[in-house]
Amino acid sequence: MEVELKEMLDELETLKRSLPDPSHYTTIDKLRLHVEHLTNLAKSAPVRRSKVKDMSAEVVDSNPYSRLMALQRMGIVENYERIREFSVAIVGIGGVGSVAAEMLTRCGIGRLLLYDYDKVELANMNRLFFRPEQVGMTKTDAAVQTLSEINPDVVLESYTLNITTVQGFETFMKSLTNKSFCPSKEGSGVDLVLSCVDNYEARMVVNQACNELNQTWMESGVSEDAVSGHIQLLIPGETACFACAPPLVVASGVDERTLKREGVCAASLPTTMGVVAGLLVQNTLKFLLKFGYVSPYLGYNSLKDFFPTMEMKPNPQCSNVACLERQKEYILAKPARDAAAKAKMEADASSTTECPLHDDNEWNISVVDDSVPDRKDARSSDALPEGLIHELPSADEFQKLPASEASATATDDLEDLRRQLEALNG
Amino acid sequence: MEVELKEMLDELETLKRSLPDPSHYTTIDKLRLHVEHLTNLAKSAPVRRSKVKDMSAEVVDSNPYSRLMALQRMGIVENYERIREFSVAIVGIGGVGSVAAEMLTRCGIGRLLLYDYDKVELANMNRLFFRPEQVGMTKTDAAVQTLSEINPDVVLESYTLNITTVQGFETFMKSLTNKSFCPSKEGSGVDLVLSCVDNYEARMVVNQACNELNQTWMESGVSEDAVSGHIQLLIPGETACFACAPPLVVASGVDERTLKREGVCAASLPTTMGVVAGLLVQNTLKFLLKFGYVSPYLGYNSLKDFFPTMEMKPNPQCSNVACLERQKEYILAKPARDAAAKAKMEADASSTTECPLHDDNEWNISVVDDSVPDRKDARSSDALPEGLIHELPSADEFQKLPASEASATATDDLEDLRRQLEALNG
Repeated sequence: MEVELKEMLDELETLKRSLPDPSHYTTIDKLRLHVEHLTNLAKSAPVRRSKVKDMSAEVVDSNPYSRLMALQRMGIVENYERIREFSVAIVGIGGVGSVAAEMLTRCGIGRLLLYDYDKVELANMNRLFFRPEQVGMTKTDAAVQTLSEINPDVVLESYTLNITTVQGFETFMKSLTNKSFCPSKEGSGVDLVLSCVDNYEARMVVNQACNELNQTWMESGVSEDAVSGHIQLLIPGETACFACAPPLVVASGVDERTLKREGVCAASLPTTMGVVAGLLVQNTLKFLLKFGYVSPYLGYNSLKDFFPTMEMKPNPQCSNVACLERQKEYILAKPARDAAAKAKMEADASSTTECPLHDDNEWNISVVDDSVPDRKDARSSDALPEGLIHELPSADEFQKLPASEASATATDDLEDLRRQLEALNG
Repeated sequence: MEVELKEMLDELETLKRSLPDPSHYTTIDKLRLHVEHLTNLAKSAPVRRSKVKDMSAEVVDSNPYSRLMALQRMGIVENYERIREFSVAIVGIGGVGSVAAEMLTRCGIGRLLLYDYDKVELANMNRLFFRPEQVGMTKTDAAVQTLSEINPDVVLESYTLNITTVQGFETFMKSLTNKSFCPSKEGSGVDLVLSCVDNYEARMVVNQACNELNQTWMESGVSEDAVSGHIQLLIPGETACFACAPPLVVASGVDERTLKREGVCAASLPTTMGVVAGLLVQNTLKFLLKFGYVSPYLGYNSLKDFFPTMEMKPNPQCSNVACLERQKEYILAKPARDAAAKAKMEADASSTTECPLHDDNEWNISVVDDSVPDRKDARSSDALPEGLIHELPSADEFQKLPASEASATATDDLEDLRRQLEALNG
């Protein structure tokens, strides 16, 4: 736009100079003022931030990564910058998927693959992320627009397709196995698949793809009444797959679309979906950056603020053939897994015994042996500054007190007491 | 902008007509093409949605409230549209406050009061809501810009001030007591105050204001290592106030700013802050729209996915004078409270006994008395279609079986068995 306005200014100048009659100059000057005004308007329009080469921990207002790199200083994450190597695929860019995508983008994830075939509608405005001016755009296009403005460092791949169609599934599989972003990576081309879809058919398709590719993924969902949700980690062969214990609708082979009634829509809330997206991406960060406990299943019941957890082993009678293959492989690899775990444990044990705890820490905290308490110090802390007294007796004095009182009454003369009683009665 | 471009077109037309020499027409036509192109660009720029008078439950793509009004149909909320009557004040428009504001805006809250004195920085981009092009704007201005685009139905009031200054506190108190939005409302001018600040000093100020105004509020916080957070409900006189059990830094009177070190910044994550904002606004919705359980305290430990809860009674030795006054009032009002609770319980009990359960429900579910099981029906279900047999005996047959076997062995001749044994040995 600014280039175009500059051209217009030049053209006006040329026109002015070629005109013989100065009577036309006023109109041309007016036009030039208009162009100049529009140029100023264009200049004040949003400017995108430039790409950042390395994530810096420097504490300056202009560093978009300072608060993330601080996770290393706080001892939460060992190497935060590794996040730039990871690829995450998000299937379904709705109320949960779009917020998950925004969170990962703001965290500086390396690459995001986004899948959806739907368009943005005004009816989506009760959830976070999409804006009314994006109505009519595909969700993938709208997401790429917003996410690239937020963080130009993230590589965004957008797939406007339905993964439940034959062609959609082919493209889905192909995109997941493309390793050009990080050729040295083992396994498929992505580190994690997040399922953020709203129907079982699509979940079964993600399940099929991940079982075939031996791809770890996380599932998420929100109830139709908008007040519950869950996230789940699925590792082919190691945990239950989505078909190992399918929902009744899936198991009974009913087409779930026939269950929906005309003119009835599911409720949804930005709160429940925001919480589920937050729990999902938090689990993703813990999984990728190796910190904390990666939850195998975490539910959210918002009416009672109850968060159920559970673990599900794979079903040896699972109907999914690829799942059974992964289960077999997982069992066969047990000796190798045990040996690796043992070696790691030994390595950890030897490294911790060798180096001293908190040798030189920035807070200058040192560990002092407190097994022999310094009695003298404890006593001296009892001594109060001049002019102050203890309001209550010390523990020792308290123990003595009843004893001295008891001995005092014992020395009282019983005869003396009887005399006093008689005097009162008399 | 479009008006200006229209003017330019007219001016170019006038100029063209006044020029004697057609050699200048080419340049003028070129200019006109430029203006037409710019007009098209301007037309494709975002158009804001118009205001909505009533919240409709109609299921059409263009209804921004259909998914929220569905909460009534799902039986979660009795009257969702009441949300338009409520005013919520949010103090601190940072990582939690901005997301809380967006959630309430998308839920169609009546009025939002936003307080912050800070400016948007690139270092804030690791949390949701603010965009890089808003860097340099005040957080309140940037929030109003985004929120009014998302939902023009919400009345937004923005206060760019520091509530911990004398003047800031005065304006804060005045704004909270302004009842022009809903003059019939009891109490202060807002229904709830949400504290989303990042320091104790500001929390103590919100506490002071709410204790003085007898204003229910909710507190929120995220730890410096970015992996924990909490929300808390504070009802003056009824629950502990923030000064009833103050954090050590507050109790010891240390200026918390002296604890922060040069060049060291707290870590933060969009996930933790998103979850805390989600839990906070969910609790807000439950409180305002009267559904589910309003949590008095809910913690979030993301490393372990642990969500601690607790309740705190007010401290009779609280250092806050206004808190002590509210505590006294609360105790004095106990008989009235008990009477109201009793009356409500009786009213509920009589209403439930009078009207039939699910008299006419849209799912056509009817309750049948099953206290006398139909034995004949139970028997007939035992009868199998022709050609099929029960693989296992029925319960009755199973009971009989061991008895008949026992009687059979009793009739066996012992002499006969001995003969058989001898024959085997022989």
